[in-house]
Amino acid sequence: MNFGSDNQYGVDPRILQAIVDANARLTDTSYCHDDGAKAVDARLSAIFETEVKAFLVVNGTGANSLALSAITPPHGGVFCHEGSHINEDECNCPELFTGGAKLLALPGAHSKLQPATVTEKLKRFGHGEHAPKPSALSLTNATEAGTVYSPAEVKALADVVKPHGMKLHMDGARFANALVALGCSPAEMTWKAGVDVLSFGGTKNGAMLLEAVVFFNLPLADDFLYRRKRAGQLVSKGRYLSAQMLAYLQDDVWLANARRANRLAQVLAKGLSQSNRVRITNPVEANEVFAVMPKATYEAVQAKGAHFYDWPLDGLGNDEIHCRFVTSFATPEEHVNQFLALMREVA
Amino acid sequence: MNFGSDNQYGVDPRILQAIVDANARLTDTSYCHDDGAKAVDARLSAIFETEVKAFLVVNGTGANSLALSAITPPHGGVFCHEGSHINEDECNCPELFTGGAKLLALPGAHSKLQPATVTEKLKRFGHGEHAPKPSALSLTNATEAGTVYSPAEVKALADVVKPHGMKLHMDGARFANALVALGCSPAEMTWKAGVDVLSFGGTKNGAMLLEAVVFFNLPLADDFLYRRKRAGQLVSKGRYLSAQMLAYLQDDVWLANARRANRLAQVLAKGLSQSNRVRITNPVEANEVFAVMPKATYEAVQAKGAHFYDWPLDGLGNDEIHCRFVTSFATPEEHVNQFLALMREVA
Amino acid sequence: MNFGSDNQYGVDPRILQAIVDANARLTDTSYCHDDGAKAVDARLSAIFETEVKAFLVVNGTGANSLALSAITPPHGGVFCHEGSHINEDECNCPELFTGGAKLLALPGAHSKLQPATVTEKLKRFGHGEHAPKPSALSLTNATEAGTVYSPAEVKALADVVKPHGMKLHMDGARFANALVALGCSPAEMTWKAGVDVLSFGGTKNGAMLLEAVVFFNLPLADDFLYRRKRAGQLVSKGRYLSAQMLAYLQDDVWLANARRANRLAQVLAKGLSQSNRVRITNPVEANEVFAVMPKATYEAVQAKGAHFYDWPLDGLGNDEIHCRFVTSFATPEEHVNQFLALMREVA
Amino acid sequence: MNFGSDNQYGVDPRILQAIVDANARLTDTSYCHDDGAKAVDARLSAIFETEVKAFLVVNGTGANSLALSAITPPHGGVFCHEGSHINEDECNCPELFTGGAKLLALPGAHSKLQPATVTEKLKRFGHGEHAPKPSALSLTNATEAGTVYSPAEVKALADVVKPHGMKLHMDGARFANALVALGCSPAEMTWKAGVDVLSFGGTKNGAMLLEAVVFFNLPLADDFLYRRKRAGQLVSKGRYLSAQMLAYLQDDVWLANARRANRLAQVLAKGLSQSNRVRITNPVEANEVFAVMPKATYEAVQAKGAHFYDWPLDGLGNDEIHCRFVTSFATPEEHVNQFLALMREVA
Repeated sequence: MNFGSDNQYGVDPRILQAIVDANARLTDTSYCHDDGAKAVDARLSAIFETEVKAFLVVNGTGANSLALSAITPPHGGVFCHEGSHINEDECNCPELFTGGAKLLALPGAHSKLQPATVTEKLKRFGHGEHAPKPSALSLTNATEAGTVYSPAEVKALADVVKPHGMKLHMDGARFANALVALGCSPAEMTWKAGVDVLSFGGTKNGAMLLEAVVFFNLPLADDFLYRRKRAGQLVSKGRYLSAQMLAYLQDDVWLANARRANRLAQVLAKGLSQSNRVRITNPVEANEVFAVMPKATYEAVQAKGAHFYDWPLDGLGNDEIHCRFVTSFATPEEHVNQFLALMREVA
Repeated sequence: MNFGSDNQYGVDPRILQAIVDANARLTDTSYCHDDGAKAVDARLSAIFETEVKAFLVVNGTGANSLALSAITPPHGGVFCHEGSHINEDECNCPELFTGGAKLLALPGAHSKLQPATVTEKLKRFGHGEHAPKPSALSLTNATEAGTVYSPAEVKALADVVKPHGMKLHMDGARFANALVALGCSPAEMTWKAGVDVLSFGGTKNGAMLLEAVVFFNLPLADDFLYRRKRAGQLVSKGRYLSAQMLAYLQDDVWLANARRANRLAQVLAKGLSQSNRVRITNPVEANEVFAVMPKATYEAVQAKGAHFYDWPLDGLGNDEIHCRFVTSFATPEEHVNQFLALMREVA
Repeated sequence: MNFGSDNQYGVDPRILQAIVDANARLTDTSYCHDDGAKAVDARLSAIFETEVKAFLVVNGTGANSLALSAITPPHGGVFCHEGSHINEDECNCPELFTGGAKLLALPGAHSKLQPATVTEKLKRFGHGEHAPKPSALSLTNATEAGTVYSPAEVKALADVVKPHGMKLHMDGARFANALVALGCSPAEMTWKAGVDVLSFGGTKNGAMLLEAVVFFNLPLADDFLYRRKRAGQLVSKGRYLSAQMLAYLQDDVWLANARRANRLAQVLAKGLSQSNRVRITNPVEANEVFAVMPKATYEAVQAKGAHFYDWPLDGLGNDEIHCRFVTSFATPEEHVNQFLALMREVA
Repeated sequence: MNFGSDNQYGVDPRILQAIVDANARLTDTSYCHDDGAKAVDARLSAIFETEVKAFLVVNGTGANSLALSAITPPHGGVFCHEGSHINEDECNCPELFTGGAKLLALPGAHSKLQPATVTEKLKRFGHGEHAPKPSALSLTNATEAGTVYSPAEVKALADVVKPHGMKLHMDGARFANALVALGCSPAEMTWKAGVDVLSFGGTKNGAMLLEAVVFFNLPLADDFLYRRKRAGQLVSKGRYLSAQMLAYLQDDVWLANARRANRLAQVLAKGLSQSNRVRITNPVEANEVFAVMPKATYEAVQAKGAHFYDWPLDGLGNDEIHCRFVTSFATPEEHVNQFLALMREVA
């Protein structure tokens, strides 16, 4: 009963098979200039219904930090949610890769930014060179709270920042989860709503170690081969990345995996909400459930083999704990049911 | 007939199998805190006959640049060979991860530094804060020219720099190739000769994407978990790295692979040296052969399917070209023979 | 009637004279190794009643950012007030000089941090390498709101962070103003309360361009000559900095100047508070006054020649504006009186 | 008898007077937005016969490193002479301000680069993202060896690099010395020969602490206000910088000072060359003289009060020492004569 993180699960067998198959070629072009990498570009261009430039990298922190490095100068400011991964969980990698740009953390319920918050913050800038130059806005979709931005919501934020010359980044570590939740097209979720560059996640949804930085605003990608190399995100045996991505996108593996994870989150949330000792704290829109429960309950179920993390929340009672549950493409459905039974049992 | 690079070959089947096996675990601890990572520490400590701290990362540029970040302040100078990978092939990643430390490139025949060269250069420092503070020496073993440093040679260089408070890094992207060539122990090649931190290569010798930063000088590793994360070199599904490393070290796979590559380089060198149109330029001590040949020969054999790169060399004649040949754990021996036959044929 | 900033006023005539006098020496040792620089060390050691190491630099942003670079690794986090100069007014210079350390901005009334706020925030750390390593706390004294921390308040904050291995920096751009307000000794305000390194301001209190980075924790200063040079804060004709500092400290010029500025702030605040249209928003403890007034009043007095800035404040009414008034060593007292008369006049 | 450096001399009395005069204004706009700064722009535009954007900063290291930050990305390579100030004497400040760009040091007699050397080096690039992207060429004029580049020589180098999209920086710490030596116009020395951005020196030629970064290629200056602030090179009481620069340029003070320094260098060189124990090593074209002399002579004259530095040179005999003599706007002519007499005396 592991709801710790989607990255504690393994690799989708179809993706693993693709890695094995890639080994059949005695040799291949190295440094991500293999034919597979070119096929990824074409495949993602088709999926996004526009020409994109995609660069394979090894993890989400690398993808995000590199994407930001292409859209902010070092004297820039990147607006983001205070609970965003780039702000809380990447240990200054965005600062490193951007040369010291500043993340300007903003509040917002359920890990989502509101246009008014950004508008208000922007008023603090533009009075000379003492503050950084507002250069980018970064949104996470699905968010760190398991919620999603609709295309209209993304567009509304883009409309606030674009007149200031700012660029728009989307952290899509759980892009597929958001996409199937929204039921829109990948294009609608991104460039049609103003996104310039996307961190397109693979690892959390079944890949081994794989993300792509996908540019819709193509001139921004001009020097990106250099950027990726300089940041240590270029792997020599690139075929094992492109093989993962092609298998991930093949036969809608990515969408099916995300649907499964999202569905299990709904099952979990529904079950939990039937307990009067549990309070769901964020709308369950993707593959994460957040809930407050008594500490005693938390300890009891952990002792019986359930694994999930506590999560910061202001205003908790002394005997309460806030928890995060993540479901994945590989979480056994019976584990969800088992866990819900356990919750009833320890009541 | 591919002698382009050892990284153009695939993954050793035993290592690939270990990756497949690692997938059998439904879940595992993420972020390189898995039991496999701990086992790697123990295994490398045994191999090096001393307690080491080892950190798995994804590629050589990351390993080198991170290792340097732990041994130089940003106002430091890192002495290295002018042809070293960190100086020529890592696109400012060392500068990025160290916060702008300066690589001080020195000449030396066959990509090896001599103690006198380092001694001479050191005289230029120590006159105040206008020049960077000499902080580290980085050696590559096996070198970029396919030569090796003996433990005594490493020790002689350590003896020059250690009295200045400088630390010693070894870039061991081809560590195994050097080790089997030297016939010494891993301990003799490293900490017994003064090495503080080692980039221990896996990718070029049969792994998929895998290197380790191995500390012998343990206090230097104090904040390295943060450093690895900050540099984007921490992968979430760490079990696929530790599985590779354990399989690589199991049953001396790493040594056998390196021996095979080195032996093929000897076969190739011997064959080439029998041609009076070819001049071997560096001692062939590991798995690389460097040779000057007529441009016409180069073009003829490339046209017939041989793949290898030209390489810079001063003082070439107009009709000559300098070439690098790399053999790997997986290079078919018949390709070497085929290529030598081709060389005779186009004569 | 200029209350825009203390840095819009000129240079104290005694300091200017010292610059002129320094020019009488045909030559002097360059790069801040002149005898004057050594005398500054001795003088500040006497003033602080302990051996200090002091480094002259040209401005406050440089002093703060350099001081931080000596007490945080690049993967570190620096706790500070959200309205602090390093967080709001130095355009990513702290991020640059520290190699990308992260400023962790915390709230607090009147620009002061409370121990409980820091304690609470610290709970978010210590769970691995995903967040930066808490490395330093930076306080401003006098604060950006014109308030001061007492030695006991500084000590209470030090007591929170020191057990975590964190270092304590004080931004003393207006150190003298705080000192004379507190009536304590320089030692009590700093190292006796736990301060490791101080940005000791000169420019805002009568110098031309001059600050010192003063280390009480001497080992932290080990490489600081390199740091200062690397950051472009080392001037060649250093005698013109040391001359300023010696004159600034001579005959208590610095204390007298600060007393004068503080006294005028009291006069101003008292006058303003007599108006029922004006609301003082921060305790007036140093040389700054913050007040809310009607926009109409603001515009009227500005039109008649009063110069001061509006300042962000949450929860303002539509017709209100929040303003900052700074008094300096050189502000004519009659300008204060003139301004108060004007305020009454436009009522 | 001080020939140590031009920066060991003081401030030209006319420039000092301008500083004093600037103090007469009770208040002035801060942060280099004063009217004086605008006047500097106009004055330099007139001098250079084209619209320039000029930014005042406090020292040469800051000026150079900032100028480079505007013309190279962090993954770029900056070609320069191996003995250039940016490569040898700025302790990684260029690396810091550029975010880790790499200085690619090239040899050349008398501290001058030849087009063929740059052409040859460029061949090593353009083969993918493993090496940095060639982005800029930096020349020093007058050079660190006291020689000068003619406009035609600058142009010839520009013609090599501009087709590669590279930008051209000139380090003009001793710009005036080169200008009066060449007898050309400031425009001919710079933008007409292809220079994009110039570090325009003041400190070594009579200012207190003052350089300007002067852009001829105006779009490169777009974000420079932010860059200057971020790098800690923005001073608050900017009037004391603009006053220096205006006085420096007034009545050709800068040209007269440079002529005087250059003339004394000729007197010194002529005198030294009459000794058969002394060998002049670089053409004496600006205000520096380099010469080899017996160590015994060196020690004798130093003991009698002559001050100058030894300087690295390859191929010296055991009893020889290579020395640098710098003359300045303020070096007393009798000191030159006295020193030459002393040299004869110790023969």
